[in-house]
Order: sequence, then C-alpha cells, then structure tokens
Amino acid sequence: MKMRIDIITLFPEMCESVMSESIIGRARKKGIIEVVCHQLRDYALDKHKKVDDTTYGGGMGMLMKAEPIALCIENICGQIGKKPHCIFMSPKGKVLTQSKLKQLSENDSILILCGHYEGVDQRVLDEFIDEEISIGDYVLTGGELPALVLADSLSRLVPGVLSDDLCFSDESHFDGLLEYPQYTKPSVWRGIEIPEILMSGHHENIDKWRRQKSLEETFRKRPDMLENAKLTDDDKKYLENLLKKENTE
Amino acid sequence: MKMRIDIITLFPEMCESVMSESIIGRARKKGIIEVVCHQLRDYALDKHKKVDDTTYGGGMGMLMKAEPIALCIENICGQIGKKPHCIFMSPKGKVLTQSKLKQLSENDSILILCGHYEGVDQRVLDEFIDEEISIGDYVLTGGELPALVLADSLSRLVPGVLSDDLCFSDESHFDGLLEYPQYTKPSVWRGIEIPEILMSGHHENIDKWRRQKSLEETFRKRPDMLENAKLTDDDKKYLENLLKKENTE
Repeated sequence: MKMRIDIITLFPEMCESVMSESIIGRARKKGIIEVVCHQLRDYALDKHKKVDDTTYGGGMGMLMKAEPIALCIENICGQIGKKPHCIFMSPKGKVLTQSKLKQLSENDSILILCGHYEGVDQRVLDEFIDEEISIGDYVLTGGELPALVLADSLSRLVPGVLSDDLCFSDESHFDGLLEYPQYTKPSVWRGIEIPEILMSGHHENIDKWRRQKSLEETFRKRPDMLENAKLTDDDKKYLENLLKKENTE
Repeated sequence: MKMRIDIITLFPEMCESVMSESIIGRARKKGIIEVVCHQLRDYALDKHKKVDDTTYGGGMGMLMKAEPIALCIENICGQIGKKPHCIFMSPKGKVLTQSKLKQLSENDSILILCGHYEGVDQRVLDEFIDEEISIGDYVLTGGELPALVLADSLSRLVPGVLSDDLCFSDESHFDGLLEYPQYTKPSVWRGIEIPEILMSGHHENIDKWRRQKSLEETFRKRPDMLENAKLTDDDKKYLENLLKKENTE
C-alpha cells in the first residue's frame, strides 16, 4: 500500500528539504510514499497573503485564520478524492508513541497541519481535524518539526520504505527493551578494546550477552519500560539478580 | 548570555535549512544564538570518506565509527576553547521535558551528535557524551530531527530569542495546564460564531472563562498533567464539578 502525506505549513521549502534526504527521500523517489508540502499563504484571500490575525478577547500574539486552512484542506480533499485523516500538531494533543504510529499507518492518506504564531482559530480545528498529536511535553517554535517527526516515523512503517525487515524489528522500542551496546572497527580504538565475547564467534553466547545488556540498559535508564516488555523466565531471573546486586552495593 | 549549539550530522544542509527559518533564524542573524552544523564525513580518515562499518558480533546494518566523531568533537572543543556539554540523541536517552530544557539552557555551549545507520560505536559515546536524550518513545530515521527539536526548543529559552516574555509565559506547558481555545477574525466564520463572552470586553470574566477552559481541556485531554499543575482553590472546585458532571452523565 502506498501512503500519501500532505503537510500544510508556512515553511514548505524547509519541510521539503527534510523530507528529501536519506531513507524518506529514497522512498519518495521509488514512489512508495508521496509527500506534498503546501504553502498555506497560497490560500490567503487578500492581496497581502495574510494568514494571521489578532485574538478575540485580547492577548499577545497572532492566531492563524480559519478560512485559508479550510480552503487548503478542501483543495487537498479534491486532489485525493476523499478526506484524508487530518492531524493537527499541538501541545494539547495525545503524546505520540510507536503504537499510535502503527495505528496511523493503516491510513493511506494523512494530512498534517502545522501550527504557528500563538495558535489556530479553534473553529477550523473543530470542523476539520480528526485528532491532535503532540510529540512530547516541550514547547517548540512551530508545528513544522513535530509534523516532520510524525511524517518521518510514520513513513518508516510503510512496507518497502525500510530496506530490510530485520533491521526494523531489531531496534529499540520494538520488543520493549533498549538496545544493547554496539561496536564497530577497529577492535582496539584509542587503547579501548571491544568486549571479548563479540570476537568469540559463538553466536549463542553473543545473543545471550546482548539480551542481558539490553535488560541492564533498560533497568538503569528506563525502568518504566520493563513493565510492558515481553520478558522470558531467564530475563526475569537476570533482572532479579541485578536488583539484588544494586541493593547490596 | 549567548548560546552556541554545534550539531554533528551527515546532513548539515538539511539542519542548516531548518535552523535558518523563523524565530531561530532571526535570533541567529541578531547574534543571540550561534548554530554550527558539522559534516561528520569531513572527519573521515580514508579517501572514500567512510564513517560507518559493520557490527562486531554480527547483526544487520552499519554502525558509525568512533574516530571521525572523536576528531570532530575535538575540533569543536578547540574552536570553543573548552568541552561543550555533549548530548547524543538516542532512543535510549531520558525523554525530553520542558524542565530538562530549562536545566540545559544554563549551558553556554551545547554539542549535539546525531546518530544514523543502526547506531554508534559505544566507546566514543562512553568517552565524550555527557548525556543521552530522547524526544519520545517512537523510532525515527536518524538523529537529525531529534537534534533539531532539541536545538529549537532550547533556543527559545535563550533570553532575547522570543520577542516578548509575555507570549512565552502564556503558552501550554508553562503553568502546567493546556491552553484555552482561541479565536480570530471574522467573528462569524462559515456560520459559526465565536463564544459570546470574548466580545464582551469584560476582561475579568474573559480571564475566568479562559482559566476554566484551560482546566477543562487539561481534564479531558491530559488529566495526568493536573497532578503537577499549580491550582487555586477555585480551580479545584471547578474540577470537582467537572468530575461530578462526568460521573452523572
């Protein structure tokens, strides 16, 4: 299945530049995903291409007007032949997770509206937006980086975008544990050797070591993730020993 | 205080394009913040500018080699005259929050290393990196977007970058509540009127309405945030009523 992602923004060139690099850029060239960045200003009604105005009830800063956004969304609906799943990037949204992404990846068309200035007229959000998503509990200059984070992480889940399904399943946040430490050439770098076991050629032992290191990393850095991780009996025993060791130190 | 942010990446043009727009671009032109994007490949030792290699112990994908990263960091240290606070963007890091950003904003120089491929040789991380930071529990193509999210959200906290301190304190995640709905011209858009109170000119009532809407938004969308929010006795009473109303519906 192909996916189309439309991004409505005041900075289409910047979004285009990010979405043209690396894995996403290659997937676009291959036609596996289609990304279209729209300049909101093209839908402004007046000759000054004004897309913002003051806030009713007073307050600092400017808001994005409803009509240019509505016209842009309607234009996209016309192009696609249906209404895409419409997302507004907002600190008020549900915080993005990998399982949310998996759910979103079932759509074949996603529209992402980037906020800017102090916010967006609530009425156009109420009329068109299916859900608000936040990438985390921190404040950014605008919705562009959040939109790009969503578009990038979503694109990875479209079949064919990643070259190898194995890479995909190996990474952090897929089995619910953090990744084990990794090493590349040379085996001695500035006097520091890699762990001996990785040179042993004994794959079973290496897998066991890696699993234990994953457990250890998660235990030390993100213990909250252990609650939802899929753990074997051996894993649980190893963690119990880690905990005992920690308590006696 | 000026802040310098160094970003080590395989995609310096893309990072440069994002960091040149809008508020951050203006702050750079004014000299309030300095952002320098470094092409890691310039520090590769061989004639093919190779910065990655296979993983010891087996496994799919390539890792970033230690030496080019070490040389690049050392070069930056030489330019600045000291070692900046070194951050590696990684799913294994602590998840970024606004209070973490506040703490980071006390540094006058920050270095951000973007990972790519399947990861980075652990030894160079152990030697140089002060902390690992994640922007959230989702998987991205590389460390560039996370680095840009960190650089953008951090820059906003440097005095002088935002034009008005009032805007700053008004936004979500600052008093621990989500923002109230906002409206701009026209007062009737496609037949939908703005809430009458915003036309009243009665500022005390408008402030009260906005506070209640903030409480309501937070209660419905992010109830977890209420635990740490600063609430008055009136706020608590309003929330109790919301809860009662919810339970009887």
